[in-house]
Amino acid sequence: MSLLQKTLLEIKGVNKEKMEETQKYVDGLLKPVGSLGTLEEIVVQLSGIMKTNEFTSLKKAVVVCAADHGIFEEGITSAPQVVTAMMTNFISQGKSGVGAIAKHVGADLTVVDVGVNAELNYDVIINRKIKNGTNNFAKESAMTKEEAIKSLEVGIEIANTLIDKGYNILATGEMGIGNTTPSSAIFSVFGEIDAKEVTGIGANLSEDKMNKKVDVIRKGIELNKPNKEDAIDVLSKVGGLEIGAMAGVMLAGAARNVPVLVDGFISTAAAAIAINLKPEVFNYLICSHSSAEKGAALASSMLGFKPYLNMGLRLGEGSGAALAFSIIESAISMFDEMGTYEEAGISVV
Amino acid sequence: MSLLQKTLLEIKGVNKEKMEETQKYVDGLLKPVGSLGTLEEIVVQLSGIMKTNEFTSLKKAVVVCAADHGIFEEGITSAPQVVTAMMTNFISQGKSGVGAIAKHVGADLTVVDVGVNAELNYDVIINRKIKNGTNNFAKESAMTKEEAIKSLEVGIEIANTLIDKGYNILATGEMGIGNTTPSSAIFSVFGEIDAKEVTGIGANLSEDKMNKKVDVIRKGIELNKPNKEDAIDVLSKVGGLEIGAMAGVMLAGAARNVPVLVDGFISTAAAAIAINLKPEVFNYLICSHSSAEKGAALASSMLGFKPYLNMGLRLGEGSGAALAFSIIESAISMFDEMGTYEEAGISVV
Repeated sequence: MSLLQKTLLEIKGVNKEKMEETQKYVDGLLKPVGSLGTLEEIVVQLSGIMKTNEFTSLKKAVVVCAADHGIFEEGITSAPQVVTAMMTNFISQGKSGVGAIAKHVGADLTVVDVGVNAELNYDVIINRKIKNGTNNFAKESAMTKEEAIKSLEVGIEIANTLIDKGYNILATGEMGIGNTTPSSAIFSVFGEIDAKEVTGIGANLSEDKMNKKVDVIRKGIELNKPNKEDAIDVLSKVGGLEIGAMAGVMLAGAARNVPVLVDGFISTAAAAIAINLKPEVFNYLICSHSSAEKGAALASSMLGFKPYLNMGLRLGEGSGAALAFSIIESAISMFDEMGTYEEAGISVV
Repeated sequence: MSLLQKTLLEIKGVNKEKMEETQKYVDGLLKPVGSLGTLEEIVVQLSGIMKTNEFTSLKKAVVVCAADHGIFEEGITSAPQVVTAMMTNFISQGKSGVGAIAKHVGADLTVVDVGVNAELNYDVIINRKIKNGTNNFAKESAMTKEEAIKSLEVGIEIANTLIDKGYNILATGEMGIGNTTPSSAIFSVFGEIDAKEVTGIGANLSEDKMNKKVDVIRKGIELNKPNKEDAIDVLSKVGGLEIGAMAGVMLAGAARNVPVLVDGFISTAAAAIAINLKPEVFNYLICSHSSAEKGAALASSMLGFKPYLNMGLRLGEGSGAALAFSIIESAISMFDEMGTYEEAGISVV
């Protein structure tokens, strides 16, 4: 049995009994019922994922998956392709946005080359290069089915290794010039909606290039005819290697009872792949922020996510997900530190 | 000259030059311009407030101001009045929502009795009681003009003491059964809008009591005729002692170049008082979250705030503001830790 098949089989539902226990306890904390909103929802979800309500301290990692995109050659990006390699190296040095935020929240970075079109510094970057970027999906399938499965398995392996090392919460991030384009394509396919509805400016695109981007996505979908009932078909035809790897991290998290934080638009596209492969994955994912990228809000609501950070972020890299770690730890602190009405000897509120 | 007058005179505008310098530096960080959204805005604002872009580590305090409300006797709350005293004691023990969150983010709590209708534990609570709760503003002015000024000065004194001790960022919180009612009244007056538009369920109010609450606010405004051009008149006639004290904290922060975090609906009402006393205060305030209390969104937009946490919080106490400390520290980490295009030897992006 392949690693992917094995992982999919291992994914079970979250623990509803633990969630009910946690909800009941939270309702008895010294506050009006429901008044801590999302903090309450987060801790209830964590108990379902982790199958416990005795929370240990969080050991946090951001997995940044990097790859290039053949669709780049259609001229639908504002930055040259070399920026993928350059920024991936900077990310691995902690010099990027996600690094700065991860440092503040005490999260470790793991950077993985799944398909960057250049050699990187493999002293600090994990080399799992599948190929030097995807094919141009406006002309052919972005990758073969085997490559798509391999990208998912890279993510699974990386996550499994981190979980074996004691990490108990993961965030997904990415770097890949052009990768809002396959992300828009994925939502266009799954949502059966026109590309224009889910296509935005990426890293500051001009209006001309925006229109080009929409055309390219429409053309790629028409040409490749991805089957929305088959997430691997969608991933291979119009997806990306780092999108597959992020989806793999989510699958492994779900299989191992580890919450995985979804970042922005591209990470949400990876979530769409993972959830379409195995719907149970949804409950293992925590959606952090609503990206400023057009289409992100629609994408989140298509999946049923309710993002709680509204900060106009559109950097990617896992920056928004890293920011959310502190919120999640505050939710646990609420659970662990607050007094209860029972302790206070108050029976009715 | 009174402490209030002195403080108002000390409040100057934020430093636009430092803000421009910071914005320029942020634009040169290794990311697409603007892609870290609110994090960028926060650090630019901090530099304007603190008049520097060399940030030292934040020493953080949440000032929780507690008081009772005569309007309580109209039956417009879900909890009995004794809960103010009880919860204020719990807050001072770190057992409440704000305590749990403050513990996680490394902020200290200062709890002040400005007008609780009971004796509290003054070993840990600062006693600045002005009176045992306001008068019922449905029948008479909530307090005298002198009491309103005193409440502002209590907040100024508390903030000045904290700033003297080295605290360089403050958050405002409160406890006071019934205090969404004066807050709604304040926005109804300043916004010249019907009470119904800015009145919500507080701590889980029934619909009957909600309608009562709206009627009481309308009646109180009609009776007292607060002058919207005179913030002290508004505060004294339909406000609250803890609302005045929170406004005082904001005034002192602005006078001393210290950012003050606004929490939820009641804290926003205090911000309305402070800003109406001295419009320059606005730029010294950082609005943390959009409260789930009805009227909060309208109140925030009336003042021009753009809350960035969207977590359905409606606890008060400063809980949402405390949660935002980590976001603010992440913004500073972005500024301090990220590499620049210049360092990377890249001239055009």
